[in-house]
Amino acid sequence: MNPKKAFSKLKKISEDSHAISDVSAIVSWDQEVNMPPKGLENRGRMMSWLAQQRHKNATNPEIGEALETTRSGDWNEKEKACLREWQRGWDLSTKIPADLVQRAALASVKGHESWKSAREKNDFSIFRDDLKELIDLSKERAECIGYTTESYDALLDMYQAGMNVQGIDALFTNLKNKLTPLLEEILDWQGEIEDDPVAGHYSQEEQKKFCEWGAKHIGFDFDAGRIDTAVHPFCSGAGPGDIRLTTRYNLENPFDSFFGSLHETGHGLYEQGLPSGKDEYGTPLSESVSLGIHESQSLFWESIVGQSPEFWEYVLPFFKEHFPGRADSVTHAQIVRRTNKVSRSLIRVEADEVTYPLHVILRFEIERDIFRGNLSVDDLPDAWNQKMQELIGVTPPNNTLGVLQDVHWSMGGFGYFPTYALGRLYSAQFTETLSKDVPSWKDDMAKGDCSPALEWSRKNIHSRGSIYRTEQLIEKVTGTPPSEEPFLNYLRKKYKSIFS
Amino acid sequence: MNPKKAFSKLKKISEDSHAISDVSAIVSWDQEVNMPPKGLENRGRMMSWLAQQRHKNATNPEIGEALETTRSGDWNEKEKACLREWQRGWDLSTKIPADLVQRAALASVKGHESWKSAREKNDFSIFRDDLKELIDLSKERAECIGYTTESYDALLDMYQAGMNVQGIDALFTNLKNKLTPLLEEILDWQGEIEDDPVAGHYSQEEQKKFCEWGAKHIGFDFDAGRIDTAVHPFCSGAGPGDIRLTTRYNLENPFDSFFGSLHETGHGLYEQGLPSGKDEYGTPLSESVSLGIHESQSLFWESIVGQSPEFWEYVLPFFKEHFPGRADSVTHAQIVRRTNKVSRSLIRVEADEVTYPLHVILRFEIERDIFRGNLSVDDLPDAWNQKMQELIGVTPPNNTLGVLQDVHWSMGGFGYFPTYALGRLYSAQFTETLSKDVPSWKDDMAKGDCSPALEWSRKNIHSRGSIYRTEQLIEKVTGTPPSEEPFLNYLRKKYKSIFS
Repeated sequence: MNPKKAFSKLKKISEDSHAISDVSAIVSWDQEVNMPPKGLENRGRMMSWLAQQRHKNATNPEIGEALETTRSGDWNEKEKACLREWQRGWDLSTKIPADLVQRAALASVKGHESWKSAREKNDFSIFRDDLKELIDLSKERAECIGYTTESYDALLDMYQAGMNVQGIDALFTNLKNKLTPLLEEILDWQGEIEDDPVAGHYSQEEQKKFCEWGAKHIGFDFDAGRIDTAVHPFCSGAGPGDIRLTTRYNLENPFDSFFGSLHETGHGLYEQGLPSGKDEYGTPLSESVSLGIHESQSLFWESIVGQSPEFWEYVLPFFKEHFPGRADSVTHAQIVRRTNKVSRSLIRVEADEVTYPLHVILRFEIERDIFRGNLSVDDLPDAWNQKMQELIGVTPPNNTLGVLQDVHWSMGGFGYFPTYALGRLYSAQFTETLSKDVPSWKDDMAKGDCSPALEWSRKNIHSRGSIYRTEQLIEKVTGTPPSEEPFLNYLRKKYKSIFS
Repeated sequence: MNPKKAFSKLKKISEDSHAISDVSAIVSWDQEVNMPPKGLENRGRMMSWLAQQRHKNATNPEIGEALETTRSGDWNEKEKACLREWQRGWDLSTKIPADLVQRAALASVKGHESWKSAREKNDFSIFRDDLKELIDLSKERAECIGYTTESYDALLDMYQAGMNVQGIDALFTNLKNKLTPLLEEILDWQGEIEDDPVAGHYSQEEQKKFCEWGAKHIGFDFDAGRIDTAVHPFCSGAGPGDIRLTTRYNLENPFDSFFGSLHETGHGLYEQGLPSGKDEYGTPLSESVSLGIHESQSLFWESIVGQSPEFWEYVLPFFKEHFPGRADSVTHAQIVRRTNKVSRSLIRVEADEVTYPLHVILRFEIERDIFRGNLSVDDLPDAWNQKMQELIGVTPPNNTLGVLQDVHWSMGGFGYFPTYALGRLYSAQFTETLSKDVPSWKDDMAKGDCSPALEWSRKNIHSRGSIYRTEQLIEKVTGTPPSEEPFLNYLRKKYKSIFS
């Protein structure tokens, strides 16, 4: 086999891997959105068969041989990117022995059950042993994957190529040191919270229409996607022509579903903007770069756009029109304050954009210390509560609202949390460049035109697929490496203008 | 490998084949019901990957080896049935060479296009050459599969194991000779058709609710299935816990969607009643016997139940309740006549239950003569029109309403049509036995209880999966081989009571 043929071979296997992902995505989406309850048992068989095919495809020995052969080839930038990602996928699929994968799968099922029970009963000890095992298995996985500095690096890199303790530590320490005093300031500016100016009952049907209006307004192509209802909001789909968003409805609060929809739409706009030409589709060129960059796109539309005063200049009349009688007399200033409330709260998934990163820093520092061996499982609940007080200024009254609140650890997901906060930093950093490149984008948005912002993202981020790694892409687009400064500047400026 | 191990191996491969079918069913269903238009291109890639997996699984050489090994084993009735069906599947998958499969796939894409254009332009010559090629490819396929008497047998057997020209010819000749004069009689009894007593506009929303009510009323389990809207009504799904029905709506006629739904629900009830225990699921024991038996179940609920005077004794008040203002004063006798109109019509898919089998006999005789070499493609339009006059008493004014009306030939589907009429004969024959076994079933139905009929079908037909072949099952259940007499008796009795 010559290098060119080896490359074609890898492309074919990669295309199959995309087909498996797309089929799996539709089958999973269907499970969340359409499946009747008695379909669950057989759905398990279907998903398990798909998982086997995915594994078979990813560990096909021909990949290793073809990768060897391509070493002697001469490749352009795009081909190099493909080979880089294929090598990474091959390493991740083959370095972890099958029996470890199985043990981890079993432990995560067991851990998920004991976590649910521990959370219900507010009793950390029910989860303790399973959590210990999940940590040990993740350490074992890290050893298999390998790392240069410390084992947690291997786990971070698994979720986002190139992510490591050193880089995140530097970013997060700066962020934390500046964000905790800024939070004090913002809370001061905010003062006492006024009563909800748009309190009332909002039917699912009304909210659904407004969410669809919002998604369409910011540029979602409904000929290439759809929005449905599911218990947990997500974005999935079968390739760029078929992106599926879901949302859920809180009948007392239309902003939950609206901002949730804008968030998922942000993910969806990224997916709809990925390259899908003949040479790209089925290769890493058609894939998103990383979880952090994905999150930067969803957060841009949810927070930076969706919760901005400019956006609501255009949107408020439509809000009033969609929900007649409940918002007739609300002012622009009121709605902006209402949708940008900041508070020291206990639960990450309900946190505002100011405190949110602090919740993530807490988890990062705990995970880092666990994997360094500086923190034992038994000390976790106390460490959690201390850090909550330190970072956010509140102490959880119990473990259910503290260390047991997230699902991730119960399934062995260590190294995932940082991407949630990185997305916020990246989105602010991208927005700084957007404002330089297209100074009028906020004015356009205030007049109802979101397309300049979307086109900028399409050109600079979406259309680049996975050609560059995360940090490279950020430097390429913004001219500087990832930094916490743009995010802090964004918050300071925005909240000062809203509240003071 | 010993015979027991070989059997387990075959079971494992069969389970995978079910998983592939179930996954494919969900992906196809989603395509019809949910897919946004731009998803089409990638959906093709997904379906093609699934088709490859199906082919790989069905032609796995280990199947042939394992089947050999099982020959020396000692098997019970259920195991024998599994081995019989696995052997049949293996033969069908391996006897036809891959290049013939490919040539046939290409020809059917081409044929489908030229048929559409020929139908639109009412010009048979556009389709002529492609049809000739499709017939030649089917002859080639028949030679690969093999047959004892004539090549058309191989195609008939492909769609329904055991079906052959001799058997169908005998049934259909008797049927035709008795049905054409009976049609005269029924039309005489019917006399002049009265104006539609329930004319009006029926919104999709109203019809949808009534269709769901009907499906539930006859026993469909909505915890193990659902009904949606699609351009072409069908029944599919992912195993017995997840059956998907679709229907379409004619806003001027609520009976189209209602009887269409009952038809698909009949298919769905069969699927929901198939065995799904640990030993059965994934084997032929959990599969329906044949297309003809499947059709017998759908036609039982659509026609024998749904269009019976007894059913409407209970249903009419609900019909009035669902569609207020349009049926307030309609009588039971009027609605029964309205839903049982008989006419000499041109289009098979719109035909009533009396003339329907004649449309199928026409197609069977034409296909039989083509494959015997007694009828050339050029003579097809004339042969069609002559037979229409002979059997149904009308002559199509053009080929669009004649020889070009069906999609099947354009995709190489020769040998499929007979199952549509066999289903009618089987359903009437089963109903005779049901009436002997459970004499009160019609009275129960008139009082709103359809469960005695469903339970009888569950016990005698559904729960038997594919243990018996079609003809065996019919003899086992009714005590006699397939016959046209019960169907003719049913028609005579029913239409006499309604119209004369």
